[in-house]
Parts: sequence; C-alpha cells; structure tokens
Amino acid sequence: MAKLSTRQRLYQVIFGTDTKAGQYFDIALIITILCSELVLIISSIKSYELQYSRIFFLLEWGFTLLFTVEYIVRLYCSPRPMAYARSFYGIIDLIAVLPSYISFLFPGTQYLLIVRLLRVMRIFRILKLAKFLKDSNILLRSLLMAQGKILVFFSTVAILVTVLGSLLFVIEGPDNGFTSIPASIYWAIVTITTVGYGDIVPQTDLGKALAAFTMLLGYSILAVPTGIITAELSREMKTQRELVRCPNCSASGHETDASYCRKCGAALPENL
Amino acid sequence: MAKLSTRQRLYQVIFGTDTKAGQYFDIALIITILCSELVLIISSIKSYELQYSRIFFLLEWGFTLLFTVEYIVRLYCSPRPMAYARSFYGIIDLIAVLPSYISFLFPGTQYLLIVRLLRVMRIFRILKLAKFLKDSNILLRSLLMAQGKILVFFSTVAILVTVLGSLLFVIEGPDNGFTSIPASIYWAIVTITTVGYGDIVPQTDLGKALAAFTMLLGYSILAVPTGIITAELSREMKTQRELVRCPNCSASGHETDASYCRKCGAALPENL
Amino acid sequence: MAKLSTRQRLYQVIFGTDTKAGQYFDIALIITILCSELVLIISSIKSYELQYSRIFFLLEWGFTLLFTVEYIVRLYCSPRPMAYARSFYGIIDLIAVLPSYISFLFPGTQYLLIVRLLRVMRIFRILKLAKFLKDSNILLRSLLMAQGKILVFFSTVAILVTVLGSLLFVIEGPDNGFTSIPASIYWAIVTITTVGYGDIVPQTDLGKALAAFTMLLGYSILAVPTGIITAELSREMKTQRELVRCPNCSASGHETDASYCRKCGAALPENL
Amino acid sequence: MAKLSTRQRLYQVIFGTDTKAGQYFDIALIITILCSELVLIISSIKSYELQYSRIFFLLEWGFTLLFTVEYIVRLYCSPRPMAYARSFYGIIDLIAVLPSYISFLFPGTQYLLIVRLLRVMRIFRILKLAKFLKDSNILLRSLLMAQGKILVFFSTVAILVTVLGSLLFVIEGPDNGFTSIPASIYWAIVTITTVGYGDIVPQTDLGKALAAFTMLLGYSILAVPTGIITAELSREMKTQRELVRCPNCSASGHETDASYCRKCGAALPENL
Repeated sequence: MAKLSTRQRLYQVIFGTDTKAGQYFDIALIITILCSELVLIISSIKSYELQYSRIFFLLEWGFTLLFTVEYIVRLYCSPRPMAYARSFYGIIDLIAVLPSYISFLFPGTQYLLIVRLLRVMRIFRILKLAKFLKDSNILLRSLLMAQGKILVFFSTVAILVTVLGSLLFVIEGPDNGFTSIPASIYWAIVTITTVGYGDIVPQTDLGKALAAFTMLLGYSILAVPTGIITAELSREMKTQRELVRCPNCSASGHETDASYCRKCGAALPENL
Repeated sequence: MAKLSTRQRLYQVIFGTDTKAGQYFDIALIITILCSELVLIISSIKSYELQYSRIFFLLEWGFTLLFTVEYIVRLYCSPRPMAYARSFYGIIDLIAVLPSYISFLFPGTQYLLIVRLLRVMRIFRILKLAKFLKDSNILLRSLLMAQGKILVFFSTVAILVTVLGSLLFVIEGPDNGFTSIPASIYWAIVTITTVGYGDIVPQTDLGKALAAFTMLLGYSILAVPTGIITAELSREMKTQRELVRCPNCSASGHETDASYCRKCGAALPENL
Repeated sequence: MAKLSTRQRLYQVIFGTDTKAGQYFDIALIITILCSELVLIISSIKSYELQYSRIFFLLEWGFTLLFTVEYIVRLYCSPRPMAYARSFYGIIDLIAVLPSYISFLFPGTQYLLIVRLLRVMRIFRILKLAKFLKDSNILLRSLLMAQGKILVFFSTVAILVTVLGSLLFVIEGPDNGFTSIPASIYWAIVTITTVGYGDIVPQTDLGKALAAFTMLLGYSILAVPTGIITAELSREMKTQRELVRCPNCSASGHETDASYCRKCGAALPENL
Repeated sequence: MAKLSTRQRLYQVIFGTDTKAGQYFDIALIITILCSELVLIISSIKSYELQYSRIFFLLEWGFTLLFTVEYIVRLYCSPRPMAYARSFYGIIDLIAVLPSYISFLFPGTQYLLIVRLLRVMRIFRILKLAKFLKDSNILLRSLLMAQGKILVFFSTVAILVTVLGSLLFVIEGPDNGFTSIPASIYWAIVTITTVGYGDIVPQTDLGKALAAFTMLLGYSILAVPTGIITAELSREMKTQRELVRCPNCSASGHETDASYCRKCGAALPENL
C-alpha cells in the first residue's frame, strides 16, 4: 500500500470501516452519540433538570465541542467537503451542534420551539448505527420492491380515512367532539389503525355503526401490508439463497448465513 | 387515422387516456378535485369558516360551475349518455354538483343532514385517482380471489360479535354501560378489533374474564385474514411472473417490473 | 328410488340438503332464526321494549312455538332421537325454546341471570349457517393442522401474561388500580393484545417501563399466530390444487374454483 | 441394564423423562406448581386474603416445604450439584422457596418490594411446562433463524420511538401531559404498537398530525415482523418435511405429523 497523507489517513479512519482504527473510531462515535442522547433525554425530566442543571450544562457543552471538532475534521479530510456538508448526515452533524451556539450567541433563544426542535433532531445521528445492522439490507430491499404496492395501500387508506372522517363529521357534528373534518380524519386514523385512544368517540347510533364498520375495515385491511411484505420477503429470501453459488461445485440454495457449501464443504464467498 | 367529429374528439380527451390531451385533462381534473376537497376540508374548521366565509362561498360556486360543465360535456360526448349517467362515476359526478344547486333553490337546506352528506360524498370523486395506481390490479385480484374466504371470515366475526355482545349485555347490564344488545355488539367490535376506546368497559369479574377471552380471540383471528391475503398474494405474484414469456426465447419467471428478458435480453411485452 | 315412509321423507327434508324440499326448508329455517335473533336484539333496546312490549311478547311466543314444533319433528323423524338430543345442535335447539316455557311456568324467572343467559344462547343456532359457507373447510383444516402450534402460542401468552401481571401488581399496587393479581392479569391481556382500554394504566416509572416492554412484546408476538396460519394456509392451498386431477388427462395444479381442466378442457370433478 | 445406586435412580426420576416414574414425577410437579401459583394469585385478592389468611398461610408453608425438599433432593442426586444450582432452573427453584424463609427469619420483610417480587418470580417455574409442548421446537427455531432480522426491526422501532417521542415533547410540552422525553417515548410506544391507552393524548394540531403519522407508521411496520416470522416459518416447515426420509423407499416430503410413508406405507422414524 502506498504512503498516505495525513488527510487521507484521517479520511480512512473517520469515513471508512475497513481499518482497525476506523472501526474503533466508529464504535467510540456511536458510544458518544448514545451518551449525548441519554443526557438529552434525562435532562428533559424536570426534577433532574432542576437539581443537576450545572452538570447537564457542562455535559452539553462537552458534547457540543466534541461534535464540532468531529464536524470540522470531517469537512477537512473529505475529498469533496461540499458534498459531505450537503448530504443527509452532513446536515444532521451540523444540526447537532448548531443549537448550542445559537443559544450562546442569542441568549434566550433556547426556549424557542425551533431551537428546541433542532436540539432533539440530534437524535437522528443515531441512524449512523444502521450500518452495523447486517440484516437490514434484505428488509430494505423487500420494502423497496414492495414500494409500489405500499403506495397503493396508503393511497387507499388516505381516501378511506377522508371519506369516513367527512361522513362522521356530518353525522356526529361538533357537539360530540367531531369539531372539523381534519379532527374527524384524525379520529378515523385513530380508529382504522386500531389505536383507539378514546378521546373522540361517536355518540349517535349511526355514528357508532359507521365506527364499527371503520374498525372492521381497519382490522381486515391491516392484512394487506402484511401480505405484501411477507410475499416480497419470502421471494427475496429465496432469491438470496439462489444467488450464492459455491465457487467449487457451483451448487446454489444455501442458507443466507451459511459459510460453507452444503454439497462439497468449500468456503462460500462472503454473503450480503 | 380517420377524421373524428368534435364529439368523438371530446370523448377521447375526457374519457380516454391514450392521447396526450386526454392525459393532461385527467391530471387537471385530479388537481381540481383535490383542490375542491381541500377547500371542503378547510372550510369545515369553524374559525376559518367565520373569517373567510366569502372566499369559501365563491370557491364553492367556482368548483360547482366547473364540475357542472364537466358533467354536461360528459353527457354530451358519451356515446351512451344514459349508461354514463347511471354508472357509479356518473352518479358521483352528479352528486358533486347537486347540493350547491339545492341550497341555492331552497335556501336553508344547506343545514339539512342529507344535503351536507351529499356535499361530502363529492369526496368519492377521489376514487378516479385509482387508475393512476399501477400496482392496484394485483392487489385487487388477490382480494377478489380471496373473497370467498374473506366472506367466511367476516361471517364468523359477525356471529362471534353477536354472541359475545349478547353475553356481556346479560352479564354486565345497563348499569355498567351495556345498555342494549346493539350497544354491547358495538363494544364487542371495539374489543375484538383491538381498537379499545375504553368508553364502555366491563366492570364485573365475569365480564372482565369474557372480555379477556374476546381480546385473545380477536388477537388470534386477526391472523386469519392476513394469512388469506398473504397466501393469495404470493400465488398471484408467482402466477404473474410465470405469465410473462419472452417473445424471443420464451423464458418465463421474470420479475413483474422487468423490461428485458433475464435470459436473452430481448425486450419484454408491457406487463400489467 | 324405493318408496319412503313419511318419517324418512321428513328426515330427508329436515336433516338433509340433497333434495329441493330439504334446501327450501334450510333456507326457511335460517331466515326464521335470523328474524328471531333480530327481534331479540331489538327488544333489548329499552325505548323499543317499553313501546312495543306487546308485539315483542307475541313474536317471542310465535318463534318459541315454531322452534318447539321443529324440535319435536326432528326428534320424531331422526333415526336415533337420543343421539340428536344429546348432540351440540340438539342441545342448542332445546335451549332455544326452554327459557320461554320456564318463564311461563315460573313467572318472574325471566329476570334471573341464568334464564336470560339461556335466552341469548339461542344465538348459537346461527352456527347452522356454517354449512352454507363453502370456503370454511379450507380455513378450518388450516386451523386444525396448526392447532399444536396455536396451543404452544397460547400457553406462552398465558405464562407471559401471568408473569407480567404479577410483576405489575407488586410494582404498582392497589392504589394505582392494580387491585389484585387477576386484575393485573386482565390489564396485561388488555395491553399485550394491543386493545388498550385505558381503564387501568401504570402510574410509576418502573410500571410504565414494564408496560412499554409488554406492548412491544405483544406487538411482535402478534406476528407468530399470523405466521403459523399463513404458512399452513399456503401449504393447504397448494395441496388442494395438487389433489384435483383431471379425469381425462390427469393433469393437476388447478385453481380451487376451476371447473374445467386447464390442459384439456374436460370437466373437473366437483372440488371441496 | 446394570444395577443403579439410589442416587442414580433418584436422578432418573427427578431429572429424566424416560422412565414411567420420571413421567409421573413431572406430572405431579407441574400440578403442584400450578396449585401453588393458583394460591398465590387468589391470595392477592384482598377480600379472600382477609377471610382465609390462615389457610393461605398454611398452604404457603406447605408448598414451601415441598419445594425445599425437591430442591435439596435435586442438589443431592445431581451429578454436578453446582452446575444445577447455577442454572436458570436452579436459581428459579431457589427463588421459589427463599421469600418464605426470609420473611420467617426477618419478620416484616414480607412487605418489602424485593421480597414480594421474589415471591411472584416463582411463577417462572411454570416454564418447566415447556418441555411438554412438542411443537415449540419449530417455533423456537424460526425465531432463532429470524433473530438477526428481529433485532434490526427492534432497533428501528427504538430509534423511531425516540425521535417521535422527542418531537412530541417539544411540540406538546409538559402542559399537555408530555412531561419529559421518557414520558413522551412511553406515549410513542403506546401509539406505535396501536395499544392507545388514551392517558396521554396530543392536544395541538401539529401534535395530532404527528400522532396520525406515528399510527400509520406503526400500522404498516407491524407488517414487518409478521413477514419475517412467516417467511422463516414457511421455510422451516418445508425443510422439516424434506428432512424426514422413508427408511424403506427414501421418499421425502411427509407431513410433520405423519407416522407412515406416503409412498410405501412403511413406518417413519420418530420426527421432531
């Protein structure tokens, strides 16, 4: 391997996962992210916030500085800094540090909804964990294969919910909690998904009959996305097994986690 | 192509989807329908209604006139106007414009339940979107194939719900909210579909035991429609793949969205 | 066909479904049962009961006399009357008429829980509808094939619910609504089946954490019965298609509702 | 069979299931465990506890002594006593008797949370029933095969719930019941699993819109674990049937509960 510049080596460590150092960096990063999330979650509890506000303040700034350094180093060593800065993770990385600086520069802004929203956005950094999840590929591919059918399904649900919500708005009216069509659509979603909070509930007999119909509908169309995912997943898993061929005897049909050929025992190529 | 009369060309544009103009008309129609729905939904919110009642009134009449023109043109250019007028979409198209004229001719009727119901019925026009959803065919065919089993399933649910509702009516009685057998059947549906509003809840020990039984029943029979749909869908998808044969080498087993033969690379006939 | 005695002919009509008369009798019976159910359900509504009590009383006795005659004729023409009387349907048929006579012989007993329970038991006669449902066989066979797995599943749920209910009883205690272990098990069932009435709800943090765990558990083990039923149903449907062989060319693999051979077009034997 | 020492024979009876005596012992043990559970559950009901406290006290000590004897004998006859004592069932067996002795030695401790928790832990002994459930193997194997995918699924749910909970905490705030991020995550779990207690419910429009999104998300990702389990179970059942080969004609593809070859009728080897 040719000699690498510091910047290239930094790139390998921070963005890559092939080297030992790169893996250690990833693990350290994940732990730091999880810790900063934990602090954020715990500091949202009033009683703790009042008691340990000083500690939370220091931890907050500690994490902010760490993530700032990480962000700057990423910008520095990335071959195309702008591409990184404009990517999903680049924006999330920026958002993770921004709120602290904003509230430092403009005192009082930490109480604004938008700043507080930005602060919890940091939680999306957890998505970086995703690359550690090996089986996620097959699940994702099934979802992608099924996306046409899922879209049809959600369009159907959207139409049903609008129709049913509108009907109940007219039948029940504002006196029974169905104050507007959007509120009634909210009720229809709560009912068709079988969540059933019970905060808005039909009172008239006709409304109850329609609600019962909505529930049974929700109950049975629940079967449709399951059927879609299952059918795609079954096929995907089968295709998967047929894709891996033994390099020695070219037999296929191995389990996805098989390491050796089931016919001749030769080592199989790394799968997935 | 032979010269077409104006009426025939109108028919092509309004009912057909083959020509460019027909496609543009469809898209414009869908957007208009969605806008009119949006106005209907927003105008149902009291605070907006009070503030912008004039704008809503004008928009309402604008959409009514547009849809009236569309309805008349459809009647005019259709080869069999009565068939259109009596079809599902013909009735929906009529219902979409009727309420405005009724409330214009008979002032005050806009507050009648039936007129307001007719107004929200307009939302069914959204179903015209359906033809844009490509994957809906395979889903619909699965549902049709499974309709015998789904009927059995719903009959079973209907019987269970009647029996369980009747039992709880006798056990709990009107004092605990189970005021009549229909009300108890409503409770049974709320419970067996796992919606669980909590507006009617058993109070006695025997009632609670039966409720627990109902829940576990609902929990497990939920599996039946899912199983039915999944099994039909899997088969339908498999049949689908086997139906498409390469016109060159007659290989089958292509993915539903494949455009080229997986064996010889020849273009496949358009599928679905 | 040899000459049949009146009794044998009656048997054919009442118990059989092969003759035209037998089919008409079945349909008339089903309609009568549905009507008597409807009267029972409507008469449970207080306001109707008060207004039309006389009509309900007469209808009640009309149905009772009809069903009494049916029961006696069934006993008379059955080749083994005791076997019928002791069968499931025999007992249900008796129960359908008993309460009216009891409340006639012992006035006032119609208010007893047991007599009123017996009255609604009549609803089980609706199960006679079952034989009209053609697809019920395949569903039932799938359930029977899967019964071992379903038993395992329900035992697991029973153990989980007992353990979780006991834990929450100790953690939450009677002050938060978890008054006893049976009540807590009821809560656990309400939660694990995702019904979620909200009448008993954990208040402590530890209780809430355990409740969240219970929900996620319920959410994921819901997948198990579905998986079981789907897998059995898929197999059953496949076996089904392979069972029917064309009497002409002996090809198999026909759809369950196919009437003609897909290879040679010969009429297939009646299936299911 | 060679002569066995008393200890070896005891081991056969208590730990084994091959001999008649071993099977009788198992059945007697299961019945005793179920009885002791029943006493525990019933004694948690206040009114019974007050009335029959003496009987419950005696029964409690009776079971404690029985289980103590069982524990000691197990320790005595086990070839490796320490391995048993440290195994899952060894610890559960110890925990089943400990609380009674603790509350005897240190009066008053029976009211401590930890002692009462230990008492209900005894319920885990019910898991010994598991070995009587024949079909549990295939279910367990499917779950194990799918554990990678299930882990991915639960990680996704954990991330979603944290993100959605945090967003609603900021949007709704403590005044609407979303007192802290952990409380909001609890709400998100209640909603995404479609349990829907209704104890915490969004009040603002933005909150309701996000809640509706959460429900639809929960509704559709519910399909994923089902798809996973179903796909694994189908495959497992197929593999199962292919594993059993007739010793006579080596035909495969038998049903899992088949006792004779479907081709030549020879007895099949015991399966599962």
